[in-house]
Amino acid sequence: MNAGESPRIITLLTDFGTGSPYVAQMKGVILSLNPHVVLLDVTHAVPPQNIQAGAWTLLEVADSFPAGSIHVAVVDPGVGSVREIVYAEIAGRHYVAPDNGLLGRLAARTAPSRIRAITERRFWRESVSATFHGRDIMAPVAARLSLGLDANELGPPRRALVELPEPEVRILPNKIAGQVRSIDSFGNLVTDITSAMLAGAPTDERVQIHCDEHETQGIFRTYSDQPEMTLMALIGSGGFLELAIVGDSAAAMLGVRVGTPVTIKW
Amino acid sequence: MNAGESPRIITLLTDFGTGSPYVAQMKGVILSLNPHVVLLDVTHAVPPQNIQAGAWTLLEVADSFPAGSIHVAVVDPGVGSVREIVYAEIAGRHYVAPDNGLLGRLAARTAPSRIRAITERRFWRESVSATFHGRDIMAPVAARLSLGLDANELGPPRRALVELPEPEVRILPNKIAGQVRSIDSFGNLVTDITSAMLAGAPTDERVQIHCDEHETQGIFRTYSDQPEMTLMALIGSGGFLELAIVGDSAAAMLGVRVGTPVTIKW
Amino acid sequence: MNAGESPRIITLLTDFGTGSPYVAQMKGVILSLNPHVVLLDVTHAVPPQNIQAGAWTLLEVADSFPAGSIHVAVVDPGVGSVREIVYAEIAGRHYVAPDNGLLGRLAARTAPSRIRAITERRFWRESVSATFHGRDIMAPVAARLSLGLDANELGPPRRALVELPEPEVRILPNKIAGQVRSIDSFGNLVTDITSAMLAGAPTDERVQIHCDEHETQGIFRTYSDQPEMTLMALIGSGGFLELAIVGDSAAAMLGVRVGTPVTIKW
Repeated sequence: MNAGESPRIITLLTDFGTGSPYVAQMKGVILSLNPHVVLLDVTHAVPPQNIQAGAWTLLEVADSFPAGSIHVAVVDPGVGSVREIVYAEIAGRHYVAPDNGLLGRLAARTAPSRIRAITERRFWRESVSATFHGRDIMAPVAARLSLGLDANELGPPRRALVELPEPEVRILPNKIAGQVRSIDSFGNLVTDITSAMLAGAPTDERVQIHCDEHETQGIFRTYSDQPEMTLMALIGSGGFLELAIVGDSAAAMLGVRVGTPVTIKW
Repeated sequence: MNAGESPRIITLLTDFGTGSPYVAQMKGVILSLNPHVVLLDVTHAVPPQNIQAGAWTLLEVADSFPAGSIHVAVVDPGVGSVREIVYAEIAGRHYVAPDNGLLGRLAARTAPSRIRAITERRFWRESVSATFHGRDIMAPVAARLSLGLDANELGPPRRALVELPEPEVRILPNKIAGQVRSIDSFGNLVTDITSAMLAGAPTDERVQIHCDEHETQGIFRTYSDQPEMTLMALIGSGGFLELAIVGDSAAAMLGVRVGTPVTIKW
Repeated sequence: MNAGESPRIITLLTDFGTGSPYVAQMKGVILSLNPHVVLLDVTHAVPPQNIQAGAWTLLEVADSFPAGSIHVAVVDPGVGSVREIVYAEIAGRHYVAPDNGLLGRLAARTAPSRIRAITERRFWRESVSATFHGRDIMAPVAARLSLGLDANELGPPRRALVELPEPEVRILPNKIAGQVRSIDSFGNLVTDITSAMLAGAPTDERVQIHCDEHETQGIFRTYSDQPEMTLMALIGSGGFLELAIVGDSAAAMLGVRVGTPVTIKW
């Protein structure tokens, strides 16, 4: 790091579980190569092997990080099989991940400006295990990128990333049908319906939101706009429609899970 | 950061849950403004919307941090409502938090030397959501303080912080009545009775401690002073009276919760 | 930190629980002494007071960190009793821990090149509690080591570390008998049988692995080598024999716990 230069940021997202020593191993490998990097956890609480959940979280946090950040994501049920490990440059950030759909939500929003297969073994750890490519391939590659390695050196170009089949949001003239795509730590139900999709809808009591057999009217600005214990809809901090119960967990109270259909009519 | 200068420390305490990507978003915003800051988690496991629990934790950790540290605390059930966000300088540390009682325990111990409402939007994130002021207001304000911003610029002065009604400790000539105020990860019951309050009490078997229907005699120095599976009292590392069961969880064994009365007689 | 010099790494491993403010207190103390150090969590999810589990985790992560790293480990059921706190240099890394067996797995693999009792109070925190030596002794000692303190200053030399009685792996001509020694976050069963012990064994279907009443044949390279929901054996990323159920948790499916015997015959 030259004087005055900003340190590079490497973030980690995995499904290893909070407190997993596997995460510490990845960090040790990165710091062995670049002790000046800023290491940061996005989360390690992605449900085991749940690629979709990881993909949503990557999308959620991307805009908060400065351009040039390096994001390593490891939700990798196919470790050791034929799936490739890839580098992708998306919206000015650098991603290192298995090519299994984990970068799919990001790539659907902004087309990657560069994709490379990570095949050049000289940038990997000397000894590569069959079961922990996060530590043995992705961590050292991220560290080397943070030291200035040109991503084009990592391997041959690829034209597209693997995409997972995703449930669709259906947009009709007076109706939008999506689903709950994640549940946050407060039990709020985050849907895959964006504020942009709702641009034509009213926000007052003329709009009806259905989730399972539950129903609420109106799209509010903030949790404080309704009394305690009321089911309400609002646009959450990530720009997605969210269902919340003021002062309690909507997920627990309603028994709703990821995938439950959410319909908006007006 | 000039050569030789110490980096500034920003700590985060929230009720977002361990592994919440909301925390990563706050860190990304901070690092986007000041990549040289040292970021540190106090905890994100404050029980959801439990302002009192957050207030105790802030008190517990304050003395371990160097003067000049910047502590951001987000337990904010009223986000988006009329509650203010404030800056407070307390005992040489800088706090950024909603003014809802979260800084109450700290302020009760040492009067704040400065309080400012955080109202100047030019120090906030450009686009401010209605539901995530931790990311959109508190994080960028903390980052700017770490870069040298004078807190007086943040907004108009305030004379006092909001205080929460708190259960009192009653001190009588031969009796003190307090309560369990938190439970640590070992199941030890931490009370709100300080070692200073106990200055006049004996520490031998003449002192009787009652917690619910349970009873023990004497105040010991360390967990090793009693045999395994014994209920014992001692002064914990934070200076508060603590009840422990050697080698096990007192909370689980006794079925005791936060708020349970604890009485000391001699 | 001089220009161009690498920052020192201090890692923390404890049984305080993820999100424990006790961890934040240790970090605050360290940063108060050396704000330039790189702080890193190994894990705080060691089962409470489980020294053996902590010892295995320290072994697992050691090789991923650069020489010169300082590892602080606090699983300390005897805090405040006669157990010593020690410094040990093992394989080029520096360890600060209670001398209760926590460093036993590391020392069994590579003999410590230096052991010192940590008795010199001038390197401790000014005020030392009876119940939190992690914060009051180990944290400041680690910080001072990171600033260049010679470990010989810490206290008198010791010839050996305390060893815990450990279950043995029995190696016979055509049979190895060990046990499950940890379970990772995917529910994989990690044994204490190393790849070196298996050097003479075949890896094909002639080898039979028994765990409790469950059985499988062959030692595979990676999780993808068997179909979903199959019990399989492989050498894990740490070099130990591991039992896994593809796409699910072996621990949950088989009801197996740490300590369950694992036998390999051929």
